[in-house]
Amino acid sequence: MNVRTVEGLGEIHPGESLGAVLSQEAEIAEDDVVCVASTIVSKAENRFIDLESVTAGERAQAIADRLATIADEPKDPRFAQVVLDESSELLTTAPFLLTRTQFGHVTVNAGIDRSNVPNHDLLLLPDDPMASARRLADALNAPVIITDTCGRPFRHGQRGVAIGWAGLPASRDWRGETDRNGHELEVTVESIVDELAATANLLSGEGDGGTPVVIIESFEFGDHDGSNELFRDSESDLVGQALSQWEYQP
Amino acid sequence: MNVRTVEGLGEIHPGESLGAVLSQEAEIAEDDVVCVASTIVSKAENRFIDLESVTAGERAQAIADRLATIADEPKDPRFAQVVLDESSELLTTAPFLLTRTQFGHVTVNAGIDRSNVPNHDLLLLPDDPMASARRLADALNAPVIITDTCGRPFRHGQRGVAIGWAGLPASRDWRGETDRNGHELEVTVESIVDELAATANLLSGEGDGGTPVVIIESFEFGDHDGSNELFRDSESDLVGQALSQWEYQP
Repeated sequence: MNVRTVEGLGEIHPGESLGAVLSQEAEIAEDDVVCVASTIVSKAENRFIDLESVTAGERAQAIADRLATIADEPKDPRFAQVVLDESSELLTTAPFLLTRTQFGHVTVNAGIDRSNVPNHDLLLLPDDPMASARRLADALNAPVIITDTCGRPFRHGQRGVAIGWAGLPASRDWRGETDRNGHELEVTVESIVDELAATANLLSGEGDGGTPVVIIESFEFGDHDGSNELFRDSESDLVGQALSQWEYQP
Repeated sequence: MNVRTVEGLGEIHPGESLGAVLSQEAEIAEDDVVCVASTIVSKAENRFIDLESVTAGERAQAIADRLATIADEPKDPRFAQVVLDESSELLTTAPFLLTRTQFGHVTVNAGIDRSNVPNHDLLLLPDDPMASARRLADALNAPVIITDTCGRPFRHGQRGVAIGWAGLPASRDWRGETDRNGHELEVTVESIVDELAATANLLSGEGDGGTPVVIIESFEFGDHDGSNELFRDSESDLVGQALSQWEYQP
């Protein structure tokens, strides 16, 4: 398996066709997996927001007030309002806003970006990353993964994850397969889109040296069943439930 | 970056020197990252357990009884006892045993394996994966990551993670670095050992076709600070705290 960056992509602007830009800048074979940072998808889809266009409601005001007290610094209730608008569920409101986005991804502040946002205050995640991935995969005639970078429970640090994908399944499904001794395997589903997103993130970097498109060549899915489930729903998400019932005590 | 498996490794036996086996079977350059599945490290370190050698205490009996009721099938209290012995903290006891291992990794059943365990009932994770990684890195004169495969909150499926590493830092530390517009980055720490472990898992597979050693060539850490923190401790682990206070209701 080979992993390489696409160099020479300039700043992406609203309305630009990422498919056209990538077709021009990158040699892509039909079994290459094209990993695209959500940032540039959001830019092409004009997911910028300026805070002056936002009016905070009561709930956003209350959340911001509490976060301000905890952090001992001002917090903009309009930012909390944008997070609420992008979320289907709040898992925690303190000491940070951990939410489930409308499309099912659990992340802090609904994944809204305040870095790398030229001329605007905020950049939202794509509205429907599965649809974004589908459009790009069709344009490029290759599998596509839209990636985000976020933290996780139990471990420090962030890593790349998939938020949308097309042209490949989310997971290898090992159910029913056996080990060398004929015992059924305990690992049942391997989330390959997340592992590919993590791989891409090793090369894509952040900040002013970042390369938002990474191409993974010669990845072999293998002779397994595939599954397309990635995000747990609220009912099957025990950790989400535990968090929803928990109250932060400073 | 290139990723390849090491083929031709046979079954690893207790007392075998993994360093010697790998030196013989693989060409390893000093900047290759050698990712080794914990399974074969555990086998070399004789981390097998047979249930007949275990006596379950009261707590293990109570946990197994409750899990048996929930699953409506028998659960061996001796298995629960082994999980307790390997754990420093129990995050949940139902509907499954989610624990923090003695060395800090949070996973179901303390990561104890019941697949791929020839002639024994169970295979424990290495006792001190950081020390195992150090020994292997010294023997191979290359960076080493010991990997595990486990599930995670919020998302279906398992993915590769690091449980021990040597010869490279756990993370890239972006603190203080800026985006193209001079704003400080929001992503501050990127867990590269987990991303490398996820990459390796794409090729290593499970079961009878598995290849437990994967070599990552030409990975560039880049010009960043490094950090060696990976496992959150109980005090800073808000999700762990929420889970500890939560009670499963079937």
